Amino acid sequence: MASAANAISLSASPRLAASSSSDQLVVRLQSPSSVSFRPRSELKPARLSVASRANRLRICATAAPVMDKAASPKVPTIVDVDLGDRSYPIYIGSNLLDQPELLQRHVHGKRVLIVTNETIAPLYLDKVVHALTVGNPNVSVDHVILPDGEKYKNMDVLTKVFDKAIESRLDRRCTFVALGGGVIGDMCGYAAASYLRGVNFIQIPTTVMSQVDSSVGGKTGINHRLGKNLIGAFYQPQSVLIDTDTLNTLPERELASGFAEVIKYGLIRDAEFFEWQEKNMHALMSRDPAALAYAIKRSCENKAEVVSLDEKESGLRATLNLGHTFGHAIETGFGYGVWLHGEAVAAGIVMAADMSHRLGWIDESIVTRIHNILKQAKLPTAPPETMTVEMFKSVMAVDKKVADGLLRLILLKGPLGNCVFTGDYDRKALEETLHAFCKS
Amino acid sequence: MASAANAISLSASPRLAASSSSDQLVVRLQSPSSVSFRPRSELKPARLSVASRANRLRICATAAPVMDKAASPKVPTIVDVDLGDRSYPIYIGSNLLDQPELLQRHVHGKRVLIVTNETIAPLYLDKVVHALTVGNPNVSVDHVILPDGEKYKNMDVLTKVFDKAIESRLDRRCTFVALGGGVIGDMCGYAAASYLRGVNFIQIPTTVMSQVDSSVGGKTGINHRLGKNLIGAFYQPQSVLIDTDTLNTLPERELASGFAEVIKYGLIRDAEFFEWQEKNMHALMSRDPAALAYAIKRSCENKAEVVSLDEKESGLRATLNLGHTFGHAIETGFGYGVWLHGEAVAAGIVMAADMSHRLGWIDESIVTRIHNILKQAKLPTAPPETMTVEMFKSVMAVDKKVADGLLRLILLKGPLGNCVFTGDYDRKALEETLHAFCKS
Repeated sequence: MASAANAISLSASPRLAASSSSDQLVVRLQSPSSVSFRPRSELKPARLSVASRANRLRICATAAPVMDKAASPKVPTIVDVDLGDRSYPIYIGSNLLDQPELLQRHVHGKRVLIVTNETIAPLYLDKVVHALTVGNPNVSVDHVILPDGEKYKNMDVLTKVFDKAIESRLDRRCTFVALGGGVIGDMCGYAAASYLRGVNFIQIPTTVMSQVDSSVGGKTGINHRLGKNLIGAFYQPQSVLIDTDTLNTLPERELASGFAEVIKYGLIRDAEFFEWQEKNMHALMSRDPAALAYAIKRSCENKAEVVSLDEKESGLRATLNLGHTFGHAIETGFGYGVWLHGEAVAAGIVMAADMSHRLGWIDESIVTRIHNILKQAKLPTAPPETMTVEMFKSVMAVDKKVADGLLRLILLKGPLGNCVFTGDYDRKALEETLHAFCKS
Repeated sequence: MASAANAISLSASPRLAASSSSDQLVVRLQSPSSVSFRPRSELKPARLSVASRANRLRICATAAPVMDKAASPKVPTIVDVDLGDRSYPIYIGSNLLDQPELLQRHVHGKRVLIVTNETIAPLYLDKVVHALTVGNPNVSVDHVILPDGEKYKNMDVLTKVFDKAIESRLDRRCTFVALGGGVIGDMCGYAAASYLRGVNFIQIPTTVMSQVDSSVGGKTGINHRLGKNLIGAFYQPQSVLIDTDTLNTLPERELASGFAEVIKYGLIRDAEFFEWQEKNMHALMSRDPAALAYAIKRSCENKAEVVSLDEKESGLRATLNLGHTFGHAIETGFGYGVWLHGEAVAAGIVMAADMSHRLGWIDESIVTRIHNILKQAKLPTAPPETMTVEMFKSVMAVDKKVADGLLRLILLKGPLGNCVFTGDYDRKALEETLHAFCKS
């Protein structure tokens, strides 16, 4: 096949390009040869030309790489996920749970089931029930509170959601609301996809991880003892409501875990965003509201664009899994929940970068910058010491990206912000990377 | 609202018509005022004008009400289910499992998982494995054998399918094959919908029930202890292969059970077909191959047409559930598997007809004809004696057709072959019907 490197080029203005062959897809957000932060005033006309509703931004690769400090806290930023008749808005902003109309406009029917967990329920359940019911006496709200953690993302716990829905006699016009992090969103989404063969649902993500990644795009599901997310559905929500204030109660380790996915967007397709993160990781770690809001918005824009182009992951969407194949092996081999998902992904990104460098696909400087930004975010840069080569291989063999026996990986290739999804790589590089990071 | 009766009219030629209001949908295959069996020669030109491929029939409301005795046993009849990019063919005929190309053309990737049960495996598993692999050495086939019966259509047994698929390391390009009756088709289909968020699947139904109803249309799922099919997905197969020879091994009670659905198609939308059945039920019960093939084809055509118009059951498709709301209550209240699905549906059709008559919506003569044809098919015409009014009400309250607390029913209305799906009926008639068929 033709070398993917030949397909990569630099251009003076950022734009999206993609090419594919039978077993490889090359994706790149082509970066300008020099990146500069443009003053916001320069970008206003372009923004206005694509906004059809007040304060609603269409996905736009030229969005300004600056924080939107002037935005009113009461007016959410809206990112649209464009999927034809399954399109939906992502609302992002401070204090959104105090704006009942944002939730109520997406509730169909008279019955709501909130799915949440033991950690989030005491903090936000009453607030969400109030937002759903205030001035809306026809709606009645049930809830089910699940144990908190990745290790409960299984069939037994999912059954509790079905039991509650059936015992509450919820019908096809009901709405499920996921209130919590990625585990809650994935389980509630899969329950909504399956209950009566599909009911409405709304995501209210309360962690960085779920706000920048798992709540957007319709991937739902549960784990199996032999692998992560092996059972599930592609099922899109009615809307996603991201109240950035919910991050105030998030433990620091979980905050950092979410930044692993933010860093991923920069690496796979948005070099400008990565460079912004290098300058602003300290602000993000100290929960600067404007920095958080910007990082979430830009992440959602990247995710929404990819999902709009490839909803069912026939190629492009797989690139969102940079570091995840190695990361899933860590989560599965080490026991779900010992490491957080983003921690495993961080180590996985380092391994993918190491392998990409061994293949001669990226410069040493990118490997170094990845190490540095992960350290700033207090994230791991290597797998747990107990992981063995065999543990990695055993889990990677059942990865969803295996096709007809061939493991396809997302690897970095070319300048910062470029990646490939491919099964066409030297197996020796994979062996070397696994042995470099494992003692046995 | 306007009386639905006003919307029903007779016309000289059969055609489909439908009208809907907010809570009622009227559907009718308008019958000619007098029905006569037309000689096949008269219909040939119409058939040829819609057939784009040899021996392939598009769904056609004017299909000839005669048996297709001249068709070659080696060339299957094909009914297309028209669902855009999810369209698929139903192959119907004798000896089709001996035509490997019919299966092999719909297998993607190199791995197949056959899901079957303890009754069917000894009869047909080897034959299907041979059909999948002969001349096709790249394909490897695994299988999982489930216990046989409606009471095993649950989450625990479903998990065995996931376990087998994951242990066999099947990837996204694999194909699941459902070999068995409705329970196997529903479970295998839901497993295929959920495994890795969706893999290909093929239906090989081996009972009348699954050949005329459950294998066509993409409804998949499992039961919950509180109700039937409450958890599942709409998920379409790649193809359906109906080898009518598999009916030779079907017990008589199961044969008759399937005819309940065949009778249903006549009652809800195809008066000509009902009249054909009245004349040919003896031939069907004695397994006359031509009669069976015709009844299956005509049933599939009716089902395919309804599904093509309303895949996700927003209205029209619900009419396929004539008798099923009462029937599900019998199955759930009486214990899954004590009565066969079609037996419960038969009693349910009698109850729906009784209620329709109490409402003044159909003539006494239709009630009588329903009794007579069910008796010819050795099917029940009343629920089990142990069923109580409360048992019916309790299960009917969680029926999927309840919307915002209102139970909608499929009831007969107008001349033979017409029905309505409505929540707008006198509750007294429902009470009277329940009390008429229950001792307490």
